[in-house]
Order: sequence, then structure tokens, then C-alpha cells
Amino acid sequence: MKKLVKDKTNYLQDMLAGMQVSSDSIEVISDSVVVKKDKKQQGPTLVSGGGSGHEPAHAGYVAQGMLDAAVCGEIFTSPTPDKILNAIKAVDNGDGVLLIVKNYAGDVMNFEMAQDMAKMEDINVAMVVVKDDIAVDEEAQRRGVAGTVLVHKYAGYLAEQGESLDNIQQKVQQFIDGIKTIGMALTAPLVPSTGKYGFDIDEDEIEIGIGIHGERGISKEKIAPVDEIVDKLITELVKEIAGKELIVMVNGMGGTPLSELDIVTKYVAENLSSRNLNVNHWIVGEYMTSLDMQGFSITLAPHSEELETALKAPTTSLYFE
Amino acid sequence: MKKLVKDKTNYLQDMLAGMQVSSDSIEVISDSVVVKKDKKQQGPTLVSGGGSGHEPAHAGYVAQGMLDAAVCGEIFTSPTPDKILNAIKAVDNGDGVLLIVKNYAGDVMNFEMAQDMAKMEDINVAMVVVKDDIAVDEEAQRRGVAGTVLVHKYAGYLAEQGESLDNIQQKVQQFIDGIKTIGMALTAPLVPSTGKYGFDIDEDEIEIGIGIHGERGISKEKIAPVDEIVDKLITELVKEIAGKELIVMVNGMGGTPLSELDIVTKYVAENLSSRNLNVNHWIVGEYMTSLDMQGFSITLAPHSEELETALKAPTTSLYFE
Repeated sequence: MKKLVKDKTNYLQDMLAGMQVSSDSIEVISDSVVVKKDKKQQGPTLVSGGGSGHEPAHAGYVAQGMLDAAVCGEIFTSPTPDKILNAIKAVDNGDGVLLIVKNYAGDVMNFEMAQDMAKMEDINVAMVVVKDDIAVDEEAQRRGVAGTVLVHKYAGYLAEQGESLDNIQQKVQQFIDGIKTIGMALTAPLVPSTGKYGFDIDEDEIEIGIGIHGERGISKEKIAPVDEIVDKLITELVKEIAGKELIVMVNGMGGTPLSELDIVTKYVAENLSSRNLNVNHWIVGEYMTSLDMQGFSITLAPHSEELETALKAPTTSLYFE
Repeated sequence: MKKLVKDKTNYLQDMLAGMQVSSDSIEVISDSVVVKKDKKQQGPTLVSGGGSGHEPAHAGYVAQGMLDAAVCGEIFTSPTPDKILNAIKAVDNGDGVLLIVKNYAGDVMNFEMAQDMAKMEDINVAMVVVKDDIAVDEEAQRRGVAGTVLVHKYAGYLAEQGESLDNIQQKVQQFIDGIKTIGMALTAPLVPSTGKYGFDIDEDEIEIGIGIHGERGISKEKIAPVDEIVDKLITELVKEIAGKELIVMVNGMGGTPLSELDIVTKYVAENLSSRNLNVNHWIVGEYMTSLDMQGFSITLAPHSEELETALKAPTTSLYFE
């Protein structure tokens, strides 16, 4: 397996150790929980997490203006409830904690269990579940993908504004209901624990509607010019979006060069414009990845002044523009 | 060829159009020159450029605190002198222009020609040539690679401090003489113009000492644990570095996931520590890439207070931490 690793069983620990080497503002506690060194003394705090392999999500967003902690499971594996509880206890200052969870059975179960455990210790814990991936038809089964990073930023902004836990939860839930994402892949991710690719794909094939855990998409197709791929994805997205004013994220899946993301962005802009949809703010880069997979996702969010302000607000995260 | 493109002959134009979609602070002039919308009115200005395919270098560094313009050639192809001259004329405010050029024959020749043309129009133009890649023995042949981005940042800081063109050139030249880089690759880049990979490499092989244009390295080896690869690279680097206090950049080659760069960073830190070398500042991420190549480079620079201040100084570039 060609990976830059010493021991695949230490992938997560080595990654977190490396993060800590290059960042003065975080520390790793409890083996796999990344917290801000500068603990927030007042107001609600934000915890996210899940399996690793999606870097910079989520640990790279532990920063002023975004998350207070990220709980890092092994690659593509949910973190255990005890780790999540440790994260909650590390950041809580008495004003409550919001858990931001991607909609995967294991994550939801473990974060709920941690929430129950925290409540038994009289910590006020609320939870939101992100399910922005429209590749899956049934809404309850929809996965949390790139839109989760926008949720981190929006919630982080609201927390900075001094909003209460209840208000943040309510606003964030409303935001979550409006964001829609769909992705595609040129290649499958090489998973270090198994040394195997997440799925087989031929030299002239792409997958539409992939997830971020090496799952196959909903349809396998022949490679096509990028404007046609973009049109196919946007055709699905606009079925679920109300309004004409948008915020758009073009997210790389880990192995996609920035030049190709910029090319995608050009055609997303043209496509939305041809549908008389207006983009008020763009976010382009690698925000929610799947190891070294090549591909991208498009996220559409209904524009609001507050959301745009939130997304443009400063953060010390190196990974959110 | 599996690339996110519409027409490979429009790769550069589509990429620049996409950059302009998502950025409010740049504009593309003369087809392939990226300039700041907010032109600097006083003091020396900075122009870099070269072949494309190294994104975010160089256009992503056109920002407050870094470059005033970037001249973008086609993928892995030097820009022509007339485009470089257009960049110089677009940014010059009478206080002179510094050209920051990577040491490739075509780049050096074309930038020198543009410099001569600008001088005939009475524009004061100085030039520095970056040659940080120690994979090549003979110093005159050494290529400019990831260290070039540190040069952008340092020069940008000096320009912000109001230093004269002469002072900036002199300080930057001294800095260039001290920075050393070496890289490795797990995979070759897929070059859009040809639809071919830059070189052949087997499933269990790596290349040590690669360049950033799809050139083969100086030795092909079997894949090894990352700490052994890191040791091999650092053993070469320390032969060329004086002093015990360093600034270190771990640069991804385009297709490397951030998690692996963090793992590399852990082992670079351990290795340097075992050699009693002290790292005062780390820069980890994708700064100077080669399309979708997987791999990394390590850059060592002698530490100085001014350099550390310069690297930490604010910039509006989305791509420099």
C-alpha cells in the first residue's frame, strides 16, 4: 500500500501528533479529542466529530469562531461515547454544549449515548444532525457531508455573538434543513486500515452520488466533460432548493487539484446563472474529504444576510477561508 | 483521461475564470495575468509566475501581504515575455518591481527578456531566482520549488514594511541562498495537455528527489515506512543547512491528503529533534503542487526573528496560513 505512514494501526494517533506539532492553538486530550488550548470561559460551546479521513474535518476546525472540540474516531469509524463525553466535559463551562453530528447510524447512536451520559452529570447538551447529501432519496437516511462544515462556521458565529444554546440549536436546525449537497468521484479512496480502495472504478468511469466513506455512488457513468457532470448534479440539487439567492460551496474530495476545483467552479457559476440563480458568496476548496479520493461535491444553501456574515466572519482555523 | 475539464486546451483559461468567480479581490488581465483589484499606490511591487499546475502557486498568492501579480503560463509551460511585461506594467507605480522567478531555463529567459523590455520603458525592475531544490547537485541547475512560496511571503512582508526595492532584493536574495528543499512522490501527475502521466511508477515504488513538472526523481526506491523516507530526505537537507534554529515547511504535492501530511510532520519533528535541531515555526499544507501528484517536500530555512514575523504576518491570501 502506497501511503505516507509508519504503522497503519497508528494512522490516527500519528496524524493528531502531527497536527499538534504544527499548531500552537490546539491540544489532544483523551487520545483522540482535539480541543482549543484557550478554553471558552462563557457561553455555549460546540463539539463535532466522527470517523477520521475527512481532514481538515473536523479537527482542523477547532478554532476561534468555529468548534471548541472535535472527537476523532479511527478512519471511517465512529468515535466511542466515552471519548465524546470527554470532549463535552472538556469544553463545557456551564452554559451548555451543542453536538454537531453527521447522519450516520454509528455517529448518531454514540453521540446520543454521550449526550445521555452528560445529562446524568447535569451538563446541558443539545444535538443537531446534518443530513445534506441528497444522493440518498429517503430523508432519514441522508448522510451528512460537506454542508457540515458550513454548519460549524454558522454555529461558531452564533456562539461568538453570545446567543443561547437554545437559539443556536434552533437557528442551526433551520439552516440544516435548507442545505443540500451532492458529490461525484473520479477515483476511490485508498483506505489505510485495509490497504484496499473503497470501490472498483475503471479508467473511463466516474461515480455520481458518492459518500465520504468509500461508498460507491448511486450511478456509475462514463467520464464526461465537466460542464455535463456539473449540470447533472445541479439538476438534482435545484429540485430541493427554494429561492433564487444562494451560497455555494465547491468542495474537493482530498486528491483533486485546486486547478480542477477552479474549473468546476467556473461551470457551476455558468450553470446556476443559466437557471437565473444568483450566488452571493462562494466557498471553494477541500473542506470535507475522503482520504485521497479525486472528485468534488457541490453544496447549495439559501442565502441570508446573517449566513453570509457568519461565513465571512473571522476564524483562526487555517482551513476555513 | 479522467480530469474535471471541459476542453483540455482551455485548462488555464477555465481555471482562471473559476478563480475569478470565487474571489472578489483579483482580476485577470491580458488573458493570463492575475492582479489585485486594489492596486498598490506606493512602494515596490512583486510579480511572480511560471507554468501553471502548481496551484495555489502562484495566482493564489496574489493578495495583500504577498504578490501584486502572477503571470500564469499554460500547464508546466513558461509564460511569454509580453505577458510578463503586461504584469509589470499593470502593477508598477513608479517605485519599481521585483520579479520572483523559479530557476527553470524558460522562466529565467522570459522573465529576463521582460525585465529588459520594461527597462526600455524606464520601469525599475529587479529580479531574484529561487533555486531551493537540492535534489540536483549542481547549484546553477537547481530548480525553484516550494521554498518559492516562502520567498513570496517574506518579500510581501518587506514590501508592506515600506522597504526599498534594493533592500527587498538584497534581503530576499540572502534568504533564497539559505532555503533548501527536497521532495518525493508516490504517484506521477496526470498532465492534461497530453493525457499521460509524467512518469511510470509501480504500485510499490516511490521517487525521491522529484521536481514539480512531472520529472522523474533522482532515485526510484521501494515504498518504505514514512519515518525512513523522512530520514533519507532530512539527511540530504542537513548537509546544506547551517545553524540549529529552523523554520520548516511540509508541502503536499497536490493529491496528498492532509492526514498524511500531518503524519509526515510528526516524523519530521521527531527526526529534526533527534539531530538537536529546533523548529521555531511550522508551515504544513499544499503550497506548491504538481497537479494531482501524491507526495511531499520538506523545506528547511534558517530561523530569524524577522523571517518568523514575516511568515506570521497577516495576508488576505486564502492559501497561506
